[in-house]
Amino acid sequence: MARLTLALDVMGGDFGPRITIPAVISALVAYPKLAFLLFGDQCQIRPLLQALPSTSQQRIRLVHTAKTVADDLPFRQAMRQSKGSAMQLAIEAVVTGEAQGCVSGGNTGLLMALAKQHISLLPNIERPALTSLIPSLNGRSGIMLDLGANVEADSALLCQFAEMGNIFAQVMLDLVYPRLALLNIGTEEHKGNPAIRTAHQQLKQAQHLNYIGFMEGDKLLNNYADVIICDGFSGNIALKTLEGAAHNLLAFFKPPQPDSHLCRRFKRAVMRFIFQRYYRKLQRINPDKHNGATLLGLSSVVVKSHGSAGANAFFYAILHAIQQIENEIPAKISQGLNRL
Amino acid sequence: MARLTLALDVMGGDFGPRITIPAVISALVAYPKLAFLLFGDQCQIRPLLQALPSTSQQRIRLVHTAKTVADDLPFRQAMRQSKGSAMQLAIEAVVTGEAQGCVSGGNTGLLMALAKQHISLLPNIERPALTSLIPSLNGRSGIMLDLGANVEADSALLCQFAEMGNIFAQVMLDLVYPRLALLNIGTEEHKGNPAIRTAHQQLKQAQHLNYIGFMEGDKLLNNYADVIICDGFSGNIALKTLEGAAHNLLAFFKPPQPDSHLCRRFKRAVMRFIFQRYYRKLQRINPDKHNGATLLGLSSVVVKSHGSAGANAFFYAILHAIQQIENEIPAKISQGLNRL
Repeated sequence: MARLTLALDVMGGDFGPRITIPAVISALVAYPKLAFLLFGDQCQIRPLLQALPSTSQQRIRLVHTAKTVADDLPFRQAMRQSKGSAMQLAIEAVVTGEAQGCVSGGNTGLLMALAKQHISLLPNIERPALTSLIPSLNGRSGIMLDLGANVEADSALLCQFAEMGNIFAQVMLDLVYPRLALLNIGTEEHKGNPAIRTAHQQLKQAQHLNYIGFMEGDKLLNNYADVIICDGFSGNIALKTLEGAAHNLLAFFKPPQPDSHLCRRFKRAVMRFIFQRYYRKLQRINPDKHNGATLLGLSSVVVKSHGSAGANAFFYAILHAIQQIENEIPAKISQGLNRL
Repeated sequence: MARLTLALDVMGGDFGPRITIPAVISALVAYPKLAFLLFGDQCQIRPLLQALPSTSQQRIRLVHTAKTVADDLPFRQAMRQSKGSAMQLAIEAVVTGEAQGCVSGGNTGLLMALAKQHISLLPNIERPALTSLIPSLNGRSGIMLDLGANVEADSALLCQFAEMGNIFAQVMLDLVYPRLALLNIGTEEHKGNPAIRTAHQQLKQAQHLNYIGFMEGDKLLNNYADVIICDGFSGNIALKTLEGAAHNLLAFFKPPQPDSHLCRRFKRAVMRFIFQRYYRKLQRINPDKHNGATLLGLSSVVVKSHGSAGANAFFYAILHAIQQIENEIPAKISQGLNRL
């Protein structure tokens, strides 16, 4: 059984090793052929790894670095300080081939810049796009890109996102002819900015794509399209709005707290019992399960976890990286683009 | 008791008189001093007005026009065809003083253009912003602008939105010092596009504003700020995403259908009975109650109803117009801007 090695920036995100290491342990249990190259502060990491059985310890290599880059640093300062940081070392491990992919919960802009600096872009791709699975209420996932890597996107870049998203959806969602849509403020031809209108005309001409036109934000949960294309600014705002709404509404269905009022505990228990089906349906839009955005367009798998992710959500980011490596996503996108 | 007259584009929106006239009837019942100037096709309107008692009939004047402008027409074509349409006549009634404000559910771009053409802008305002109340889960409303009138906005325009939104919130939400935030893809200083970063620096300098910085989309339901400022593209996408999520989740709590399966009806009835409090809380984010976006920055009240609004939602758009006329919003914004 070929081993699959992931490089991990253990220190990234709001909580660092406290959530990344429990996720690592869960992933090692779930995937017997998985190995980790962990980059971070050994003083913080080692105590958390004690829980791991010694057989699994062999599937971990820890590379110590005490250097971290704060999330709120301006971009240039962050770039200067990144040398020798956990994030930079994790990306380098992908470049040298020690790992097949990497996962980080750190600064998105820095991850994008370091990845672009060290990992080559696929042919005919100008810039990578932050790409994520998004949930829908019917249980089928969609794909959305870009989610924040490119604050602005011209029509050429939007069309590249469409090509990459199309192949990503074919492989990851197992679809023959994914439905593509451009996120816009209306569905009429004249709506939106010049970049989006030009991209709309170009995508309509592309015979190999199943482009279905513009879509509005209110359809995001309804699986209206399989691939949703947008610039990084509006995509990020739409996704976060969706996540906020989902988190707020899932909170209604939280399990009863042991210390809460008896009456409230009873109500919650009854609610969960009677409405298991509704609860399961709502769980489909649980943002945790869709954590992990890929920098699509690179020749290796680089996954960004949400900065505020907990251990469960970070586990899903690791899972997404594994699935993409196993499905050879970068190679398949490269082949697909070459065929055009 | 001074009469308050509203001009109404009866034909606008996806459903025209079928929803606008029932909303008119409800409004006449609820507001004894309200009168309407209705513009539209009398053949469609008259039969629907039969339900109205004759005393209320006196508070309605119907001006016949059979001319309509399709919602999906390109902008220039729509402008050419607008002469004599219900929307254009309703705006003219505001200009001549026959009505104190107008409400339309028609094409947003056309309404914006006609309003700008006929109604003067307030001093120091370059372009109006589509402004709406937005709900939050704690029951307090916020204000968001722009929601689609300006696809792009430079920093100067964003600052004008902030000034107008501040005064609008003071009057409509009865706040002394509303909290203002710029919608962005992160809260760090370096996040976003140049326009938003420049506006951020300018608003930080404005001593008379309670500017609290950037906010992300996931806080939109949580009353994080009283006034949320954004360009029309991302604002429209954020709002529609929120509306879509709210509609989808309120659907869980719909009253049991008389023809649905007995077991489902029982479940729904139990759910509503036990979870009245949750239901009421969820009702706070019912988009119907927040229908009606104002073109803020004009010297008269012009309210745009959602194209897909039903009679109940259209009633709320009328209600918002009434509240703004009674509170003399345009005059108060003008005074506020003059004081700066």
